Amino acid sequence: MAWLEIDETHAPERRSWHAEANEHPEFPIQNLPLGIFSRPGEKPRPGVAIGNHIIDLFAIRSLLPRDSDWWLDGGQLNALLGLPPAARRDLRRRLSELLSDNSYRSRVEPGLIAERDCTLHLPASIGDYSDFYVGIHHATNVGKLFRPDNPLLPNYKHVPIGYHGRASSIRPSGVPLVRPSGQAKGPDDAAPKFGPTARLDYELELGIWIGEGNELGEPIPIGQAPRHVAGYCLLNDWSARDFQAWEYVPLGPFLAKNFHTSISPWVITPEALAPFRTAQAVRDPDDPAPLPYLWDEGDQSHGALAIRLKVSLTSTHMRAARMEPAVLSQGSAVDMYWTAAQIVAHHASNGCNLNPGDLLGTGTISGAERSTWGSLLEITRGGAEPVELPSGEQRRFLEDGDEIVLTGRAEAPGYVPIGFGECRARIMPAKPILPISNKE
Amino acid sequence: MAWLEIDETHAPERRSWHAEANEHPEFPIQNLPLGIFSRPGEKPRPGVAIGNHIIDLFAIRSLLPRDSDWWLDGGQLNALLGLPPAARRDLRRRLSELLSDNSYRSRVEPGLIAERDCTLHLPASIGDYSDFYVGIHHATNVGKLFRPDNPLLPNYKHVPIGYHGRASSIRPSGVPLVRPSGQAKGPDDAAPKFGPTARLDYELELGIWIGEGNELGEPIPIGQAPRHVAGYCLLNDWSARDFQAWEYVPLGPFLAKNFHTSISPWVITPEALAPFRTAQAVRDPDDPAPLPYLWDEGDQSHGALAIRLKVSLTSTHMRAARMEPAVLSQGSAVDMYWTAAQIVAHHASNGCNLNPGDLLGTGTISGAERSTWGSLLEITRGGAEPVELPSGEQRRFLEDGDEIVLTGRAEAPGYVPIGFGECRARIMPAKPILPISNKE
Repeated sequence: MAWLEIDETHAPERRSWHAEANEHPEFPIQNLPLGIFSRPGEKPRPGVAIGNHIIDLFAIRSLLPRDSDWWLDGGQLNALLGLPPAARRDLRRRLSELLSDNSYRSRVEPGLIAERDCTLHLPASIGDYSDFYVGIHHATNVGKLFRPDNPLLPNYKHVPIGYHGRASSIRPSGVPLVRPSGQAKGPDDAAPKFGPTARLDYELELGIWIGEGNELGEPIPIGQAPRHVAGYCLLNDWSARDFQAWEYVPLGPFLAKNFHTSISPWVITPEALAPFRTAQAVRDPDDPAPLPYLWDEGDQSHGALAIRLKVSLTSTHMRAARMEPAVLSQGSAVDMYWTAAQIVAHHASNGCNLNPGDLLGTGTISGAERSTWGSLLEITRGGAEPVELPSGEQRRFLEDGDEIVLTGRAEAPGYVPIGFGECRARIMPAKPILPISNKE
Repeated sequence: MAWLEIDETHAPERRSWHAEANEHPEFPIQNLPLGIFSRPGEKPRPGVAIGNHIIDLFAIRSLLPRDSDWWLDGGQLNALLGLPPAARRDLRRRLSELLSDNSYRSRVEPGLIAERDCTLHLPASIGDYSDFYVGIHHATNVGKLFRPDNPLLPNYKHVPIGYHGRASSIRPSGVPLVRPSGQAKGPDDAAPKFGPTARLDYELELGIWIGEGNELGEPIPIGQAPRHVAGYCLLNDWSARDFQAWEYVPLGPFLAKNFHTSISPWVITPEALAPFRTAQAVRDPDDPAPLPYLWDEGDQSHGALAIRLKVSLTSTHMRAARMEPAVLSQGSAVDMYWTAAQIVAHHASNGCNLNPGDLLGTGTISGAERSTWGSLLEITRGGAEPVELPSGEQRRFLEDGDEIVLTGRAEAPGYVPIGFGECRARIMPAKPILPISNKE
């Protein structure tokens, strides 16, 4: 997997003539994430984040590898994501050169646009979205609430458990979500009721962008699986816990999840993350060995990612008082029981076809400590133990006006850290309950 | 819902100058289903079935309502499906006129193409696919196998239970499926194994094509829900029962289902089905009333569909011996506990956005009697009681080479019956097990 080798694009001494990028906590020249942006009144088009600016790739197309033209003239990155990893690596190397070599400055600088003047869109048209459950601490924490006698189910350490999600309701950072209405039935209720969720929650996840696809009926061997990953993002799998508890047997979560999913808009490439690959951390020596179709030695030793993850909340009151966001959780992506390669190999093991621009969620990533738990359901133990905010407010679950921000930072000794950008969304009040009937 | 009124297009005395259509069991002039077809070497384009022929809509575009041009020149019906029902009704009326009035014959007949010379494609690009569970007899039958003490779960009569499926692996009738490999763990196995499914099954379902969509955050009132249904098809939700039993808790079926889904290629419109609307049949007087967001009096009395459904099987041996297919099941779509309108209203009740060309499966439709059960899981009681085929072969589950055909026929006294066409697929052997690792 030559494209995952650490090369000169990762060198800490490489700096950009675009000086703000050199001290930027998220988008230094070592990152170069891909996205789709637009300026007011203009069509969305591909760009790359550098510091607080975006390089308009179409504007500098004459400087890019020759075969770029065909995917540059569109509002989605699906075609780029579907290219072999070598094409993405070549683009990265060229951009790194263009942004570091002062002799290109005069030709590249006109293509830089301030991010604050832009809207960031979904980077791809998402054909299918699947969500997994790789946070073993999350699965155990939630299992204790739903099934106290049986928290971690017998299949967990054998199967990368996953399910299909809703592609149509995925939105980029910044788009507010409407508190959903639905059916819920409390343990003491005689019958279910329909109304706004009283237990709205976030879930801290990574998203995995699929690159090259596979044909229906043709599984992806685990050793090939990294080729099919085109990048990563942050993902907030908003959840209505009251709907979930009532609807989820026997076919899994549905309306409890599909009303809105937020993602960070930049595709952080595997090439950018190469220095932050690390060994799997949450397998016990006593755990069953993965079945052969999920076992790859290199993946075990380098398939995890050292990404610090953070969730923060700002309430309406805190915003009015200009208070700092309250940090709810600080976890790490190394707490994934299954790697991206295992997720991809499992998903395609039955011949299910993945396509460029498909999105896979990891599931909520929680660590062992309460401070690392990735949902309010876990932190408040199902709402029993409220969280105290710096404003003196309490939260069992989320309130209207609350804004949740996820951030992620990849870090490794000797390398320049890179970030994911924000995954931010604010909660709008529920719509009025539907009229009983509204005939034509 | 004026577009659902029975009008002159349904009159039994209306006959076509294209004489074969008048005696056709599925595609008389009263049906006029929409699809996408191609001839060898040509691009897929919209057509309408009439007898054993297809009208090439693009070829007769000058005769169609004026606003048709913009959706006629493509390989998908999404744009047509997304139009208001009145546009679909106007198209139907015009086609009925063109095919019945002899004065149009000379201009329309050149646009007729024999179906046997054509390939039928998916009628739309399917953005999202969701599958429901409205067959109460199926839910009870399966529940007995998975949870003998608790067959029908407490939520069943309150919630139209559903889950997300995989859009990418839906294929039109005729495309063979590959027997999937996956993880299974028998009750006596110490550990799970990976290999080809030993319990491959079909599921007899209807598919519901979404027409007009709704915006994210904007529910669809039940009284408006019929406007959002653009048509119906047959759907075979192929299932690997051994994978399903092992993977389905707690997040529902995933790899047990997403390796292949077959649908019949014609969109049978709500207008064509108007004479076959009937009252709901499987609600007990003691059942809980649907919550208001799922309750519409007209829907209760006219929201079910009188469609006879049939599953047949031909084994390799039967094919070689030129034997008639074995009928495994003959059911009826009136055995749906929830109507299409209830399914749509529920799906959007939390603000989840549906889009034109989305597909909803009803779930397996079984009746009360064994002869009407819509899956082998039910008929053989989980494989315990094999079915005897006319060839003397037995089936607990499906074998390689077996071909399953679903058909559907809408019938009502005084009206010309209409059919759905076939949903046919043959099972190909599993691929060899994956290499352990296959490095680049």
